[in-house]
Amino acid sequence: MSTFGEYFRVTTYGESHCRSVGCIVDGCPPGMELTEADIQPQMTRRRPGQSAITTPRNEKDRVEIQSGTEFGVTLGTPIGMMVRNEDQRPKDYGNSTMDLYPRPSHADWTYLEKYGVKASSGGGRSSARETIGRVAAGAIAEKYLRLAHGVEIVAFVGSVGNEHLFPPTPEHPTCSTNPAFLRLLDTIDRKTVDSFLPVRCPDQGASDRMSELIAKYRDAQDSIGGTVTCVIRNVPTGLGEPAFDKMEAMLAHAMLSIPATKGFEVGSGFGGCEVAGSRHNDPFIASSTPVTPLASGASTPAPGTSTPQQQQRPRLTTKTNNSGGIQGGISNGAPIYFRVAFKPPATIGQAQTTATYASEEGILEAKGRHDPCVVPRAVPIVEAMAALVIMDSLLAQQARHTARSLLPPLKQTLPTQ
Amino acid sequence: MSTFGEYFRVTTYGESHCRSVGCIVDGCPPGMELTEADIQPQMTRRRPGQSAITTPRNEKDRVEIQSGTEFGVTLGTPIGMMVRNEDQRPKDYGNSTMDLYPRPSHADWTYLEKYGVKASSGGGRSSARETIGRVAAGAIAEKYLRLAHGVEIVAFVGSVGNEHLFPPTPEHPTCSTNPAFLRLLDTIDRKTVDSFLPVRCPDQGASDRMSELIAKYRDAQDSIGGTVTCVIRNVPTGLGEPAFDKMEAMLAHAMLSIPATKGFEVGSGFGGCEVAGSRHNDPFIASSTPVTPLASGASTPAPGTSTPQQQQRPRLTTKTNNSGGIQGGISNGAPIYFRVAFKPPATIGQAQTTATYASEEGILEAKGRHDPCVVPRAVPIVEAMAALVIMDSLLAQQARHTARSLLPPLKQTLPTQ
Amino acid sequence: MSTFGEYFRVTTYGESHCRSVGCIVDGCPPGMELTEADIQPQMTRRRPGQSAITTPRNEKDRVEIQSGTEFGVTLGTPIGMMVRNEDQRPKDYGNSTMDLYPRPSHADWTYLEKYGVKASSGGGRSSARETIGRVAAGAIAEKYLRLAHGVEIVAFVGSVGNEHLFPPTPEHPTCSTNPAFLRLLDTIDRKTVDSFLPVRCPDQGASDRMSELIAKYRDAQDSIGGTVTCVIRNVPTGLGEPAFDKMEAMLAHAMLSIPATKGFEVGSGFGGCEVAGSRHNDPFIASSTPVTPLASGASTPAPGTSTPQQQQRPRLTTKTNNSGGIQGGISNGAPIYFRVAFKPPATIGQAQTTATYASEEGILEAKGRHDPCVVPRAVPIVEAMAALVIMDSLLAQQARHTARSLLPPLKQTLPTQ
Amino acid sequence: MSTFGEYFRVTTYGESHCRSVGCIVDGCPPGMELTEADIQPQMTRRRPGQSAITTPRNEKDRVEIQSGTEFGVTLGTPIGMMVRNEDQRPKDYGNSTMDLYPRPSHADWTYLEKYGVKASSGGGRSSARETIGRVAAGAIAEKYLRLAHGVEIVAFVGSVGNEHLFPPTPEHPTCSTNPAFLRLLDTIDRKTVDSFLPVRCPDQGASDRMSELIAKYRDAQDSIGGTVTCVIRNVPTGLGEPAFDKMEAMLAHAMLSIPATKGFEVGSGFGGCEVAGSRHNDPFIASSTPVTPLASGASTPAPGTSTPQQQQRPRLTTKTNNSGGIQGGISNGAPIYFRVAFKPPATIGQAQTTATYASEEGILEAKGRHDPCVVPRAVPIVEAMAALVIMDSLLAQQARHTARSLLPPLKQTLPTQ
Repeated sequence: MSTFGEYFRVTTYGESHCRSVGCIVDGCPPGMELTEADIQPQMTRRRPGQSAITTPRNEKDRVEIQSGTEFGVTLGTPIGMMVRNEDQRPKDYGNSTMDLYPRPSHADWTYLEKYGVKASSGGGRSSARETIGRVAAGAIAEKYLRLAHGVEIVAFVGSVGNEHLFPPTPEHPTCSTNPAFLRLLDTIDRKTVDSFLPVRCPDQGASDRMSELIAKYRDAQDSIGGTVTCVIRNVPTGLGEPAFDKMEAMLAHAMLSIPATKGFEVGSGFGGCEVAGSRHNDPFIASSTPVTPLASGASTPAPGTSTPQQQQRPRLTTKTNNSGGIQGGISNGAPIYFRVAFKPPATIGQAQTTATYASEEGILEAKGRHDPCVVPRAVPIVEAMAALVIMDSLLAQQARHTARSLLPPLKQTLPTQ
Repeated sequence: MSTFGEYFRVTTYGESHCRSVGCIVDGCPPGMELTEADIQPQMTRRRPGQSAITTPRNEKDRVEIQSGTEFGVTLGTPIGMMVRNEDQRPKDYGNSTMDLYPRPSHADWTYLEKYGVKASSGGGRSSARETIGRVAAGAIAEKYLRLAHGVEIVAFVGSVGNEHLFPPTPEHPTCSTNPAFLRLLDTIDRKTVDSFLPVRCPDQGASDRMSELIAKYRDAQDSIGGTVTCVIRNVPTGLGEPAFDKMEAMLAHAMLSIPATKGFEVGSGFGGCEVAGSRHNDPFIASSTPVTPLASGASTPAPGTSTPQQQQRPRLTTKTNNSGGIQGGISNGAPIYFRVAFKPPATIGQAQTTATYASEEGILEAKGRHDPCVVPRAVPIVEAMAALVIMDSLLAQQARHTARSLLPPLKQTLPTQ
Repeated sequence: MSTFGEYFRVTTYGESHCRSVGCIVDGCPPGMELTEADIQPQMTRRRPGQSAITTPRNEKDRVEIQSGTEFGVTLGTPIGMMVRNEDQRPKDYGNSTMDLYPRPSHADWTYLEKYGVKASSGGGRSSARETIGRVAAGAIAEKYLRLAHGVEIVAFVGSVGNEHLFPPTPEHPTCSTNPAFLRLLDTIDRKTVDSFLPVRCPDQGASDRMSELIAKYRDAQDSIGGTVTCVIRNVPTGLGEPAFDKMEAMLAHAMLSIPATKGFEVGSGFGGCEVAGSRHNDPFIASSTPVTPLASGASTPAPGTSTPQQQQRPRLTTKTNNSGGIQGGISNGAPIYFRVAFKPPATIGQAQTTATYASEEGILEAKGRHDPCVVPRAVPIVEAMAALVIMDSLLAQQARHTARSLLPPLKQTLPTQ
Repeated sequence: MSTFGEYFRVTTYGESHCRSVGCIVDGCPPGMELTEADIQPQMTRRRPGQSAITTPRNEKDRVEIQSGTEFGVTLGTPIGMMVRNEDQRPKDYGNSTMDLYPRPSHADWTYLEKYGVKASSGGGRSSARETIGRVAAGAIAEKYLRLAHGVEIVAFVGSVGNEHLFPPTPEHPTCSTNPAFLRLLDTIDRKTVDSFLPVRCPDQGASDRMSELIAKYRDAQDSIGGTVTCVIRNVPTGLGEPAFDKMEAMLAHAMLSIPATKGFEVGSGFGGCEVAGSRHNDPFIASSTPVTPLASGASTPAPGTSTPQQQQRPRLTTKTNNSGGIQGGISNGAPIYFRVAFKPPATIGQAQTTATYASEEGILEAKGRHDPCVVPRAVPIVEAMAALVIMDSLLAQQARHTARSLLPPLKQTLPTQ
């Protein structure tokens, strides 16, 4: 359906050529300062038209908050948001060729099979415009996470075609064992990522190679895929809801719901399958960083208050991070990082031999200019979906944590001590 | 949480050392013949102890249906199922060492962080026994899918460590362009897979190499990861609920909720990022296979019945299948296939330098024999979760499809015709 | 939360003084003709200002469809709808008195307790404007139900204060045994109800008495409550999802979510507690009306199709209808009817002794004119919520029914025959 | 479906003649002492056979916890619970008469219409045994609510037939204005209620009259309905999730999901419709009772901690309580009270003229002894469902409250001060 999340619940609407696209965010904590200025930057980052190697359409995309705030403060009630579609003509994509042919590897045909009605834009909700509501909602989640927990979410392009920022090597079949990769995860920020526009790969050499590769495919009226890597720092421990809603399961769900995605891996990922357990295991070490407690009230208890034993344990962290910050489906406080695969865009300028809706072979040629590679634009969408997952799991855990903190203390919880 | 699915809803309970593990399946269609004999085979397939290269514990795992059937027929009411734990002693894993140390890359520490209570089994629900309820529920879904739609779900081991059944090549950076791989997907069945026990890789050469590799890690008291490939054939078109519950998003969610998973890719996957769009696009061709309609009633309408136009269109399929049977988040009738990465098991016989709960460095040695590679046992779990996803999306689509079929016919739905 | 329904899912947003109020309807069947003209009539029916005995504010409330339709046909994708607030000044209700005092029996104080933030309108989402999204969504559900199943939903005012259309009597402690009441349920339509504006009680005598009573309270700057009765005719059998989502449970949930409601009763209701079981039981009789099958496909099977035995049974109905069309939480095909209690409006012109937010006693006087009785305006809201419940349960049952119809036939389902 | 609640989620299974009935409770706070001894008392209270005026079958109903606790402490993982059915013969209810006739006002016919399969027990899940899982789950919720917040939930019989504990009078058309009723709500406890077994009406005179009335119907082989009143004391403020999941909406949903219910009213209820707004409004007064804060951490902040302004407000309460402790769908800290109507049991000893499944008129006679009035046994079921609603809304509010408490303080939230 068009709803994501249980506690921080986002419902989106809209396709390419309707009046507006938008969303309703339900469950945003009350009492947070929030205006359009908090949301617009990510909206703008996802806009096409920022350079010669992305699609030249200029969508503008001004977000308007409809409800849920007053005097710039969230009320705790649903936040309606909308972005008007400037091009509201439903027949925009409609022309004799497009109407005859389902575009290969687009959603035109499957939408028709599913709904039995053909939208003039083909697979309407599979349009990239559908992601506008996600990015708007994600910006709200992000602001909360940053204010309340110092959470930082940064995504960047990790590969375009076979150009990788950190290509697998025999020593490092997975980036997760590569110290250079881990150092980047610790420090990368959005400003740096955007300084490498239009590719958003934060390394001059790799960025240049990727840019050239994209240009090559663009000139051939072809397209190419790539991957986006995302890191989430300062995640409180204890997030993720096993068995089915493990942190990695929710992230995978979120990422594979983004149009054009084909894969997801967390921590060591697919490469980690090739590493011995003895090397892959993340040994525990004492943590030198201060505790980021889930709830300030519980962590600094008033005198005489019953204090859950949990808070008195020393804090551990892991020496390595092949786990990607998640163990048993639950965040362990280390950076969560993952990678998302995006296929080459299906819309290409080349003529393609395919079949009409009526099952007759023919040749389809797409008009106009098309985006030869979507990964740079996908960066803020990946960040938004990551924020939604963390926010939802945070609220779930805060409910549990607070509920537990109000119980009488147990005689013991660690049988050993 | 411990619930998966909306229409076909599975809720599981249980951990390693409690009285029983099990599940409740809500939403199973009434009127299907069902007894324990339909479920036990998959339960047995997931059991450890089937050969020298898997763990020698013999768990038995007899499933007992508690409710929801009478005289061997489903009533449509919730189906309770349970499997007794033979070893119900909560202190089983408890010993001085285990109680002092959170096991590296296990869930012991994160479970304690999340819940504030230490189960004697460490990360209780992260135990492999938690998957028993999934496999039982999946067997019911599978039976329905097979009876009503001829759906076939087969998983097999695609790699162990760096031994791949279809290793990536410069020509085929993804299996999805490899004809041999696609042929295997069309024909592989469970009997063949199991004939390659204990590895469950359906190729003698690859199986032998994998078996040797596992033995090598076992002898070194180490462990190794691998991947499971799964194909789903005869999926009706139109399944998957965009925007957020796209078919691939639900599959990713399902797979990453299985313990020890680190990655998921569908169709061309990560390798597909390196293929040009012009090659990656799946051209449409006329289908030679008969239509598998969603609802028999609608497909063979009685005279005078209003017939949705949708049913009169010729059937298309795709010439290639880089999409993995899903376009725009919706099944297109081609085989759905995907790959799941499993990390090397965290429990190894080697001594590991790590820290105690009290933050003191020390050396942890695990006793007993351990499973050096989980992928062969993961095969039926992957199949079960796949069945749950397809079943849930099928019911959602059947509701929509039937609802639509009862509306008066529209003058036109395809603007072109 | 602000979401209602699982399969036909409505999410609303908006309060009194924000930019707009509206909703997203997810799960509407595709292929249905739908424009604003289908929705506006119910929007207009719920508007205040229709007569001297309702509040004179004229809200207009023009609904605008944002998405989910093209060329006047539903696409099956989310339908965004919005109604602009003409009065968007957040300080509208704000004045020195209102800001000092939480209004008695309003939501001002509880909203502040819950959210910790005071909206200028007090209990923002408890505003009657919140119901706009419900009515818009309900109009869509209603249209589907009417087109596909001939469902008719009609509500009317059953009492104002102690003036009852069918007052309880010793012979009829519940209306459900009163033939005059049952006859009215069989025939009442909206046009007739609205011909008794402004009271919407379809009986001249009762309407006049109620109107006088309301005027009396209005003149005293006081207010009075009342009840709305609603009947749903032509409901397919089999709707309602036990155990927790029984038809009456969902209706009760829906109705008690309407602002100012205090009670719900279905069928014989509270009065039925006073009737002997031997009189209360509804004996079965053969039905003379033709079967309204759930799915046309299944009911008129093509030759050779496996036909569920269910469809071959004769149709029963009940001689009496104390059950209110629901038995065991499932619709039985007889009219569903229920009654909803609305309290006297909390905003009254009289001075009230109460306390400020700062806990100081004082006197609060509300300015302006206020609605002395809300029940006439509640009529379309009750209808809308009823439509949402029926629609959601219908989709759930259609999924089950279709799923079952695709299974091989059983040897027998009725052990007796 | 068979799941209730979002955060404290209960899923039940089982019908009359299967192996066992039970439930899974997901979301129970970890770290609470819990054994079967906490649950069994309510199980026993709902058992039939406690006196001559209830059904003489002795069901025993020993609950067994399957999972989710260790050493008598909750782990935070799903708690599986089961009660074996002693009578597991599926043909128990089956005999020639019962198999020919759908019992009037039972669920036999609607279950067959819905599922297309006839269970030997008729409307299997409509059986009173289905409530076992609810009562078990409710007992866990209750224990938490009592330990963490001092919540007290007490239900009792308010009427049988036309014998009322507090009959409506011209002065008090609703109990909510009757001081004697309100005093009872403040003090009534379960022990007192059970001292009036078998009727559970806590007034000797009313209890005797009700007992006689039940005996009269029993002797006539007939049955009679009644109402159960329930009060919930010490509910934290701020519970209930508008717009759709208002506290009264969730309570109504919960109560109308109990078998045999026909109505629900909260606070002044239906009688409140007849009271003037000026009398019905509940004026605010300063509260003399100490604050029961939602989270102890937030209410007793450590020095220097940012403190939400919310906590510094004086506490208000209401002078009267026609609202029933809920305003705008949100608890206001005053006792929540409501009333539930139960119809006369459908199973009676008298012969009834009705129709067979085959639509032929005939006479049905039920054998054996039957419960002439279910309200005394319904008392613990009402309490259990109330506990589930409060618990679920509490967790939702705790998530919000904690989330808000971690935000930087706002300059002001009350515009007036």
